[in-house]
Amino acid sequence: MKITVLTLFPDYFRSLLETSIIKRARDKELFEFECIDFRTFTKEKHGHVDDTPYGGGAGMVLMCQPILDALASVRTPKSTVILLTPQGKTFSQSVAKELSLQEHLIFICGHYEGFDERIRDYVDVQLSLGDFILTGGEPACMVMCDAILRLLPGTIRQDSWEDDSFSDGLLEYPQYTRPEVYEGKRVPEVLLSGHHANIKKWRHQMALKNTWKHRPDLLKEKELSKEDQEFLLNLLENKEEVC
Amino acid sequence: MKITVLTLFPDYFRSLLETSIIKRARDKELFEFECIDFRTFTKEKHGHVDDTPYGGGAGMVLMCQPILDALASVRTPKSTVILLTPQGKTFSQSVAKELSLQEHLIFICGHYEGFDERIRDYVDVQLSLGDFILTGGEPACMVMCDAILRLLPGTIRQDSWEDDSFSDGLLEYPQYTRPEVYEGKRVPEVLLSGHHANIKKWRHQMALKNTWKHRPDLLKEKELSKEDQEFLLNLLENKEEVC
Repeated sequence: MKITVLTLFPDYFRSLLETSIIKRARDKELFEFECIDFRTFTKEKHGHVDDTPYGGGAGMVLMCQPILDALASVRTPKSTVILLTPQGKTFSQSVAKELSLQEHLIFICGHYEGFDERIRDYVDVQLSLGDFILTGGEPACMVMCDAILRLLPGTIRQDSWEDDSFSDGLLEYPQYTRPEVYEGKRVPEVLLSGHHANIKKWRHQMALKNTWKHRPDLLKEKELSKEDQEFLLNLLENKEEVC
Repeated sequence: MKITVLTLFPDYFRSLLETSIIKRARDKELFEFECIDFRTFTKEKHGHVDDTPYGGGAGMVLMCQPILDALASVRTPKSTVILLTPQGKTFSQSVAKELSLQEHLIFICGHYEGFDERIRDYVDVQLSLGDFILTGGEPACMVMCDAILRLLPGTIRQDSWEDDSFSDGLLEYPQYTRPEVYEGKRVPEVLLSGHHANIKKWRHQMALKNTWKHRPDLLKEKELSKEDQEFLLNLLENKEEVC
């Protein structure tokens, strides 16, 4: 997997590349990463990459030429070109999984007021991180790269991400570590029992309960076993904490 | 406004603080920012901050003590304590606006497999950036800080963010800059007309159309004028590109 980021701020990605899990994955050469500063591609004589918007208005708009020339210099038939934009499809774990299987991802990070609309015609996918506005595409791109690179074989232990929130359509179950009692708060008895089947069942039910409490929308898309349905009906009927 | 981040990777936030718009805002002292490495608070003799989960399973779980002692050292009655977690409320522009009005935000960034469930009892707000899993809370925290700091008075021009996507519940209208024709693609005639009322109307309708095409869910929550309703009905009936 190779990731190319087109950005005005290539240094932005140092944090991602030089920290913890992603750093170790890069040291192991599990992926290649390059940033291209598209300012170096501008044909504007003062080095500008943006200009005022047609029709007036505040802010500056990124021009087609520098971005699209930079794109042409790195794109191959195996590239997937991603534009970060509020009107894109919302990024999610399933998008991350799909992208983690691609050979070459190219991200285009806008900045300032936005980019010339015609740039959209040259990309494969438009993605949004969520319903909020950032100073540029860079922080959103870092998050997406982190989520994608984390899924590359060898980055983290596979058994570690199979339990993640969203991986099976549920939020994660609660985790506890030492001490058994912290400021009067006890670890649930079942986790200390050593009874693996009960622990597994409790964790599954707690994941269901967490999802039902915090993200009931996720349950709509999920096929539930008869046992799970009964557990949730019981929660609904009692409208109270179970376990 | 002051932001305190509790993290194992304080260097992660350099990108945010040393780039572009947020850098300039910090230079103008529009906000204070500090990172606290909660590893320095651990009482575990080898400096560990995590331990194996009760009940077994892959990965390590962050312990209560280092995080909560670090929190106690910076929390005041004016602090809003935010835990980054997949089961939190989804971050959005309205959450960013609300948080941008607070005096002191404290973010707790988890890492690895997660944190001890009991930590949730000590926070004011639980936030999620979206339905995906990251190697840690840091990239998510950077995105939230960027969205929040961008809204502080003086960071960017106010007229610049009043037009943003989501600010009025709609996606943004298309923007164009020079040249008038790029690889055969023309800037829409109306933007070259100099007719301000027509430009304003076109932009509003394009924002409506973009939202209808890409994020119809946003329109459900919005009160639409009679004129807007008619424009959208017309789009629906014709099921084709208008303008």
